[in-house]
Amino acid sequence: MITPARDIYASRSDRAAGIVQRRDPVVWGTPEQSPAAGLDGEQLDRYQRDGFILLKNFFSAQETEALMQEVRRLSQDPSVRRREEAITERGSDAVRSIFMVHRLSKVLSRLSQDRRLVGIARQILGSEVYIHQSRANLKPGFQGKEFYWHSDFETWHIEDGMPAMRALSCSVLLTDNLHSNGPLMLVPGSHRQFISCVGTTPQDHYKQSLKKQEYGVPDPVSLQMLVDQGGIESMTGPAGSVVFFDCNTMHGSNSNISPYPRANVFMVYNSVENRLGPPRHGLAPRPEFIAARADCDAIQPVDPGYLRAVRG
Amino acid sequence: MITPARDIYASRSDRAAGIVQRRDPVVWGTPEQSPAAGLDGEQLDRYQRDGFILLKNFFSAQETEALMQEVRRLSQDPSVRRREEAITERGSDAVRSIFMVHRLSKVLSRLSQDRRLVGIARQILGSEVYIHQSRANLKPGFQGKEFYWHSDFETWHIEDGMPAMRALSCSVLLTDNLHSNGPLMLVPGSHRQFISCVGTTPQDHYKQSLKKQEYGVPDPVSLQMLVDQGGIESMTGPAGSVVFFDCNTMHGSNSNISPYPRANVFMVYNSVENRLGPPRHGLAPRPEFIAARADCDAIQPVDPGYLRAVRG
Repeated sequence: MITPARDIYASRSDRAAGIVQRRDPVVWGTPEQSPAAGLDGEQLDRYQRDGFILLKNFFSAQETEALMQEVRRLSQDPSVRRREEAITERGSDAVRSIFMVHRLSKVLSRLSQDRRLVGIARQILGSEVYIHQSRANLKPGFQGKEFYWHSDFETWHIEDGMPAMRALSCSVLLTDNLHSNGPLMLVPGSHRQFISCVGTTPQDHYKQSLKKQEYGVPDPVSLQMLVDQGGIESMTGPAGSVVFFDCNTMHGSNSNISPYPRANVFMVYNSVENRLGPPRHGLAPRPEFIAARADCDAIQPVDPGYLRAVRG
Repeated sequence: MITPARDIYASRSDRAAGIVQRRDPVVWGTPEQSPAAGLDGEQLDRYQRDGFILLKNFFSAQETEALMQEVRRLSQDPSVRRREEAITERGSDAVRSIFMVHRLSKVLSRLSQDRRLVGIARQILGSEVYIHQSRANLKPGFQGKEFYWHSDFETWHIEDGMPAMRALSCSVLLTDNLHSNGPLMLVPGSHRQFISCVGTTPQDHYKQSLKKQEYGVPDPVSLQMLVDQGGIESMTGPAGSVVFFDCNTMHGSNSNISPYPRANVFMVYNSVENRLGPPRHGLAPRPEFIAARADCDAIQPVDPGYLRAVRG
């Protein structure tokens, strides 16, 4: 008799909080021969151990300025601000996030195909990749609110039906990320455990959760344990740096009362062998701009150079 | 004919925001002969220039642990938690601040008299001193909210009738203050300008403002200018470090989603020649636990050693 398949990453199933060991690999591929096509062996080992890697000054100052210019343009464009892809801060009309920027902007579409980024994503995920989600995050000066701790995979697994931990986020820092302006904080090693969260999920949860997450939030005891193990690392670095982090690495950020805005572009690369299934618990699929189901052909990498055209 | 005295530090008078140059000295005294009695000349120069000084590892590990133990005891004591001096976080019953700790606790009373602290306060303020306000701030892990930018003097001048900029805060760090747990952020040089704030002040404003300040808040343009001039410095350091900062130095702190609690004891030393007058704009005086009017005799310094008794 075949026992019914059990979900090893069950969560929000109205049981108590719990911690399970990760079953999936962290690095699915192998180091490329040429470092230009991906990370070298030592970097890959670090990613495997910590669940992330910070690559400082990945983009040149000119490239970074072109990207920033494009994100600024999008955030000020009334036709973009009106769209459901544009999420405002709680209690203000400042733009907090714009989703699906790789479809709203030709420049950012090219960014998602950038051979330098796609090479690393393919290497880590061990297959061709597509964009599961993209967004620009703008944490404005003075009023940017915190993002509480979470594992992206927990949400993507439950709300989007992502089968395995075979996706990663690539964050391109468009402003200097400083200790004072609410940088991304990651818990090293947290990706090796899955925190099953308490509670159930309301339908259309995303409409609230993109402003402030209240379900799929790890319990304090589990979080304390992860931090006791690995500490917290803040991803500070100059504009143009890039962070790659595993879909199950616990992360969050504090508020930003400094006058320095913090802007990043996030792209989530998912393996083409890990496309979405049905969400858990009978939830309706989230919109395409949050979780791609239709638009998920393998990315064709493009050569750097597209950013020079922006400046022309 | 004598022109009526004008308040050079007018604020919340329903006029536009404005910036005026400070008229008062920053350092009112002179370096002591013996460094043990205060700051040395170079430290005093730095305080004069920046508006603050961080003295790392001022208290020994044993002394710090004794102080932390006392603050923990207070924050858990139901008879203290019931008092109006105990302020909880917005939206939770976690204790955010306990005021007047130098009267609620014998140990912290002695701390306020500690010869090492009083010596520095007297030196900077150029006179004998008393405690205008004291408090323990507990920024609990996971849920500590930010303190928005403010100048203490702006509030003390308007709401408490403090005449001149002749007071300072002394913050004793009881936990390690890290970049990740919402450390005190100061704007170097900001103490040399007074930012006049927009708006008026409701009666009993303090009941809200101790949780979240909404009046006496500097405008973004002035704040940006101060930060462009001086930048932002985060007061990170090990438990037992002490920060002295001028009453008009712009400061604030980001939220704390880390699991690391952040606890400090603050004591505000005011010159005995700068005792409170009537509040501005016909406001009623705030309670004694926020702004001392009755209990303001000059402090008699005590020798270190009182903390050893705590451990006994």
